[in-house]
Amino acid sequence: MAKTISINAGSSSLKWQLYKMPEEEVIAKGLIERIGLSNSVSTVKFNGQKYSETKDIPDHTAAVKILLDDLISMDIIASYDEITGVGHRVVAGGDYFKESALVTDKVIQQVEELSMLAPLHNPGAALGIKAFKEILPDITSVVVFDTAFHMTMPEVAYRYPIANRYYTDYKIRKYGAHGTSHQYVAQEAAKVLGKPLEDLKLITCHIGNGVSITAIKGGKSVDTSMGLTPLGGTMMGTRSGSIDPGVITYLLECEPAMADPKKIRTILNRDSGLLGISEKSSDMRDILAGKAEGDEKCQLAYDMYVDRLRKYIGQYFAVLNGADAIVFTAGIGENSSDVRKDIISGMTWFGVDVDPAKNVSGAYGVISTDQARVKAVVIPTDEELVIARDVERFKHPTN
Amino acid sequence: MAKTISINAGSSSLKWQLYKMPEEEVIAKGLIERIGLSNSVSTVKFNGQKYSETKDIPDHTAAVKILLDDLISMDIIASYDEITGVGHRVVAGGDYFKESALVTDKVIQQVEELSMLAPLHNPGAALGIKAFKEILPDITSVVVFDTAFHMTMPEVAYRYPIANRYYTDYKIRKYGAHGTSHQYVAQEAAKVLGKPLEDLKLITCHIGNGVSITAIKGGKSVDTSMGLTPLGGTMMGTRSGSIDPGVITYLLECEPAMADPKKIRTILNRDSGLLGISEKSSDMRDILAGKAEGDEKCQLAYDMYVDRLRKYIGQYFAVLNGADAIVFTAGIGENSSDVRKDIISGMTWFGVDVDPAKNVSGAYGVISTDQARVKAVVIPTDEELVIARDVERFKHPTN
Repeated sequence: MAKTISINAGSSSLKWQLYKMPEEEVIAKGLIERIGLSNSVSTVKFNGQKYSETKDIPDHTAAVKILLDDLISMDIIASYDEITGVGHRVVAGGDYFKESALVTDKVIQQVEELSMLAPLHNPGAALGIKAFKEILPDITSVVVFDTAFHMTMPEVAYRYPIANRYYTDYKIRKYGAHGTSHQYVAQEAAKVLGKPLEDLKLITCHIGNGVSITAIKGGKSVDTSMGLTPLGGTMMGTRSGSIDPGVITYLLECEPAMADPKKIRTILNRDSGLLGISEKSSDMRDILAGKAEGDEKCQLAYDMYVDRLRKYIGQYFAVLNGADAIVFTAGIGENSSDVRKDIISGMTWFGVDVDPAKNVSGAYGVISTDQARVKAVVIPTDEELVIARDVERFKHPTN
Repeated sequence: MAKTISINAGSSSLKWQLYKMPEEEVIAKGLIERIGLSNSVSTVKFNGQKYSETKDIPDHTAAVKILLDDLISMDIIASYDEITGVGHRVVAGGDYFKESALVTDKVIQQVEELSMLAPLHNPGAALGIKAFKEILPDITSVVVFDTAFHMTMPEVAYRYPIANRYYTDYKIRKYGAHGTSHQYVAQEAAKVLGKPLEDLKLITCHIGNGVSITAIKGGKSVDTSMGLTPLGGTMMGTRSGSIDPGVITYLLECEPAMADPKKIRTILNRDSGLLGISEKSSDMRDILAGKAEGDEKCQLAYDMYVDRLRKYIGQYFAVLNGADAIVFTAGIGENSSDVRKDIISGMTWFGVDVDPAKNVSGAYGVISTDQARVKAVVIPTDEELVIARDVERFKHPTN
């Protein structure tokens, strides 16, 4: 029985999900953490049970072996041969990759080269790709890029209004992120709305730890909020999003010791966003709890967060010249009925509204009323499934 | 006959306009350039004639003397005593000034202290204030701040999603700019629309060399595109506007020699915007000419410029939850019917449109059709008049 595994590897972690394809049935999933550190932890979820074991896992190759041996010892597979495809999530595909690609030595080299655009993500992904290549050299191995879906953006959207040479010399442009998520929820939203994706204008809101908003026309990304890096766009859990660059130069003059790209990056990536304003947490659940207790900083953090989201949605209404639906997904987008309600209730002029009976935590599908000119839709994202489907396409290229 | 003079002083220039008040009649106006350099030039426009003279003007005090003596020698005033009020435009008022203020030593000190926020503007303004104080110490002397109108913004709009200490320690927040212009055109637009300003939601677009877009509710600024500095917001003639901060840190890693706030500021303030993309000019007239000749870089620069403007207008529709009118002003906003048409024609879903017969260069008032749900309005800005009016208020505080 042919199985495909979706992989999301970081520098010290490896998240996996095993599918029976083309049935799209999740057989098992798991996470290996602390790779290369002591007391690594491997967790497997299978048949409604959760199994966990702690041991030292020195590198990604060892992690992949442990994962496969666990699958055998738990009778999930009989032998390595049952795994016929693997798909790897890669954050930055730069302008090399307009779509998913079969793994080759050159592709691995390019993924590594693009680490400068995603220093926290691409190096780990490359390790995961190489580990699978070593252990299962003959299976269909595919890389799926978070940026690929956004490569349909027109130049007017992806270029920054800075001197051309920064684009030609260093490829500084908007690449976006969460592409597989935006693509998936757009497809699912079309099904929910009962219309062909080709005929729809959608604003998809991936609101999780990272947040990106995308304007999608006829199934194609035409603009997205994240930029060259995942720091761009709207306010996030710990990230500032796009700001007046004068803030950065001003800050450098106030505190010259910070004149180091790494320090600036840390301040804006790790110490900002909900965390920077609330001084409490980057987690929306904590912010909501703090707000409910009357914590003014949590209230401000929440209000700013919602304000920035509305602004991005508003601008994509302009980019698309109207939209059929706003689609919510990812941790906060799927689970926080408050955030959805507060975004929408400030934008009623646009013809959006919320049906309180439908806008519950864990909602699926339309949450607006029948009268709404613009629908609001919740679609749980499934990036792993998109990856598995992409592997399937490469296994059967004639399809 | 009581006269008031509006002053806009830079580090080497002094622009002035003499009013008969309260009639609001412009008697004469002029510009002194190259102050402190050799071959300074003083130009006076009076009675439809233009007079120009070249001589060395060592400092702002000398410039003010020459200006006043010119007024006497040209029989515009009989003596210095006729000038009973002066109003000075100051770009940055920080959070010290929520409205215009009478000049005092403390006020001058604060204007100088705020130079860090507007290094190209505040020092020159302070020189102009001090020169008038020296020569005409007893007249009503008022400072009018570009930022004051925006001090009604709520915290959710003016705070950046970065750690609180940057706000508390360094007052890093959004201050905005072009406040007198936004205020003036909002008031005039209300007259044109025949409705009380208090009942209107307006999106005012000051589109000149610098560009700022403001969301105005009931006559009060509730959000604006420029930020801590005039580099924030949308794409401008030579400025990038707000971008992914990751672009800056990436650039610093590509070219470590640039790790100097002044260099970064120059790149983003002077070499970006229309100029950076077109590689031809920062002037919209040149861009339009280049575009008409098929220059692809001019076309891209133009398209990006319009795209960014639409996005800001779209986001302020969200902030205001709808708007009654979009108001265009300043060099490009008043004169470029192309820019206005192209902004609006991409946003028809919002209920805006353009009546080609009304949307001509130099248009005044409504340029949309009678059917438009949201009106489009052109109002020539008049910052000098707002300044003169503010002086008048201080002359007659009981009014």
